[in-house]
Amino acid sequence: MNATQPLAARDDLTPDELAATMTRLGRQAREAARDLARVTPEQKTRALMAAAAAIRAHRDDILAANARDMEGATARNLSGAMLDRLLLDAKRVEAMAKGIEDVAALPDPVGNIIAEWTRPNGLRIQRVRVPLGVIGIIYESRPNVTADAGALCLKSGNAVILRGGSESFHSSTAIHAALVAGLKAGGLPETAIQMVPTASRDAVGYLLGQMQQYVDVIVPRGGKNLIARVQADARVPVIGHLEGLCHVYVHRSADIGMARDVVLNAKMRRTGICGAAETLLIDRDCLATHWRPIADALVAAGCELRGDPELCRLDARVKPATEEDWRTEYLDAILSCHVVADVDEAIRHITTYGSAHTESIIASDPAPVERFLRDLDSAIVLHNASTQFADGGEFGMGAEIGIATGRIHARGPVGAEQLTSYKYVVRGSGQIRG
Amino acid sequence: MNATQPLAARDDLTPDELAATMTRLGRQAREAARDLARVTPEQKTRALMAAAAAIRAHRDDILAANARDMEGATARNLSGAMLDRLLLDAKRVEAMAKGIEDVAALPDPVGNIIAEWTRPNGLRIQRVRVPLGVIGIIYESRPNVTADAGALCLKSGNAVILRGGSESFHSSTAIHAALVAGLKAGGLPETAIQMVPTASRDAVGYLLGQMQQYVDVIVPRGGKNLIARVQADARVPVIGHLEGLCHVYVHRSADIGMARDVVLNAKMRRTGICGAAETLLIDRDCLATHWRPIADALVAAGCELRGDPELCRLDARVKPATEEDWRTEYLDAILSCHVVADVDEAIRHITTYGSAHTESIIASDPAPVERFLRDLDSAIVLHNASTQFADGGEFGMGAEIGIATGRIHARGPVGAEQLTSYKYVVRGSGQIRG
Repeated sequence: MNATQPLAARDDLTPDELAATMTRLGRQAREAARDLARVTPEQKTRALMAAAAAIRAHRDDILAANARDMEGATARNLSGAMLDRLLLDAKRVEAMAKGIEDVAALPDPVGNIIAEWTRPNGLRIQRVRVPLGVIGIIYESRPNVTADAGALCLKSGNAVILRGGSESFHSSTAIHAALVAGLKAGGLPETAIQMVPTASRDAVGYLLGQMQQYVDVIVPRGGKNLIARVQADARVPVIGHLEGLCHVYVHRSADIGMARDVVLNAKMRRTGICGAAETLLIDRDCLATHWRPIADALVAAGCELRGDPELCRLDARVKPATEEDWRTEYLDAILSCHVVADVDEAIRHITTYGSAHTESIIASDPAPVERFLRDLDSAIVLHNASTQFADGGEFGMGAEIGIATGRIHARGPVGAEQLTSYKYVVRGSGQIRG
Repeated sequence: MNATQPLAARDDLTPDELAATMTRLGRQAREAARDLARVTPEQKTRALMAAAAAIRAHRDDILAANARDMEGATARNLSGAMLDRLLLDAKRVEAMAKGIEDVAALPDPVGNIIAEWTRPNGLRIQRVRVPLGVIGIIYESRPNVTADAGALCLKSGNAVILRGGSESFHSSTAIHAALVAGLKAGGLPETAIQMVPTASRDAVGYLLGQMQQYVDVIVPRGGKNLIARVQADARVPVIGHLEGLCHVYVHRSADIGMARDVVLNAKMRRTGICGAAETLLIDRDCLATHWRPIADALVAAGCELRGDPELCRLDARVKPATEEDWRTEYLDAILSCHVVADVDEAIRHITTYGSAHTESIIASDPAPVERFLRDLDSAIVLHNASTQFADGGEFGMGAEIGIATGRIHARGPVGAEQLTSYKYVVRGSGQIRG
């Protein structure tokens, strides 16, 4: 674990020191990216397996570093939710190691021939997958992102500059050291996965605005404020997701038991993830039959219900919803509920208030299903399934770095394949253009 | 041709008037995009064929509008190259109409299933191609971009806001009127293809910085200054190309006649396009045999040669090259020439000085070819073929909106398919996440 020197979380760098530090990281990343684009899949697999082993071998170091972060966070009175995101235990460390092994086991996307064809003049054209180059990851308090993002970037042949939250600096540094041990074991450049070695907040500004020469894309992973800052300040392309204001629509033709189970799962399985449902839409025609089983299950699980006047009249447990509720990603055990006339009104509501992340229709009739799946322009549209499936692992893509809600480059789960670009390889026999 | 009212090229809008005009365009584009995403391929084809017919039917109006632009441009002493780009004649108008018909004949990308698979839990996942949404195109003096870009955006189901150069305002307005006539004939919203109805330069700033809500991506098409401004000021994603500093490398194993013909074509077929070669790299080992035939052909075609001291000594026609020459996209009948020891040095030179656009190796030995094609990270790498094939039409992709040199979203020729995104359609039978 001597691969990197333990660096103090200095946040008092002068602008010149910051510039020198960041430029060095950038230059090293660019060089590492050139090397990485050419290594064999086996080398990357070996490095990832060694990194997973190093995470396990140094579990106690990682937990000790995390204890330091937790002390600092407690002293700064961070919220319970933030403390929970920051906390590591033996199980979470093991999950990190397992996650890296899962990434190692994925097919290697680099070098894949995406398409090939021959032109009438004999030119043979191939579109070949290549790495993006250098990726900057900006994230918040979850230290496991260090392992996930580092592993995914390496798998896809990209060099990465990681910039985690200052509150998780020691945890991330310890995890990063294990990744670097893996790179060494695989014979790969140690600078393929770098961490910004300062907790200075100015480092984020520098990464976003001053490193166009060295960074090909920024992937922010965190809350609304982080994403908004990144999208406002970035001078390089961003693959980001805004928020997951996900809807479940219960059509009158829905199986009652299925509607109950899917709504309950979509809302309550985990309330804090972006694929959690925030709004239930339900057909007026099935309120009498479908509402109570669904509402009973939600209330029994501890969910607060907010709804329009029609629902408040129907069910005393429903609190009045305001216009603001339709626009709110609660990330909590609260569900806004709205009665609609039909699939068209459901689509209009989602188009007006949604974030184009993930929506699900529960129905047996095929016509409204096809209309919902076709006309809703969200990254993921589901039929008879929970919105909580909005996840790279659940899609069979292995680990993910997030769910993209933008329309450029990647949309939906961003896994190793989505962290690549392509180039054209053209083979001729002396063709000139007429 | 009454589909749009002829608008004066007003450049004296107040900030409020500009904001109102641009917001109206944006809102209309967003609405049109929603409709366009659902129309049938046949409707789009019908609209495109009608637009091509309208271009032909109104050739005289278009030429008259162009004559007004040419008068203005001549009065403002624009350069000969700019006047040539601006000029329309009967042949160029016909080429525009034919170009739109070619786009109409392309396969429709929207709705294509890019991939599909089934998960162990029974979820069936499809990745389906969808339009990007609203595209802003910012271009310079070529009025034909109005037709090309309008047709490609429509084919790919996108609404488009076109912002051409003020010097081509009347020509573009007349061409735009023909496109709108086509939209009407196809039963599509007339606002699917809109033109910024003012020559005010502030409109570009507004489009880049104030319309995130309405514009999903900006595609700049023009010279270095335009692209640099767009990349600096855009608050939405950009698909752009910087410059085409393309190289041809003649390996010692190259067939002499082929090397001569390909270099000549790559440099001189058209010197002003981004796929034109700007630098020749040649192996020292074949200077005695290969240099003279290549140089003779270039000089006979009127090409100026600039080279390093070795070449100046060898051939009196070669003028000394400076460091700046290796970095210069001449877009003119000038070729910088550099002697290298082998493919490794050629790759190093291209990596140092190139723009990652298009490079070609002329060689018979397979080893240097595979090394060149694999290790060079340019959008297009060719073997034994002219760099002037860097073109969507030559790739069989139909018309193109440009050659992207960025690494995000699209790379190389940007045709209809590259102007799309995708969404995931997931079909289940009540699955919930464990």
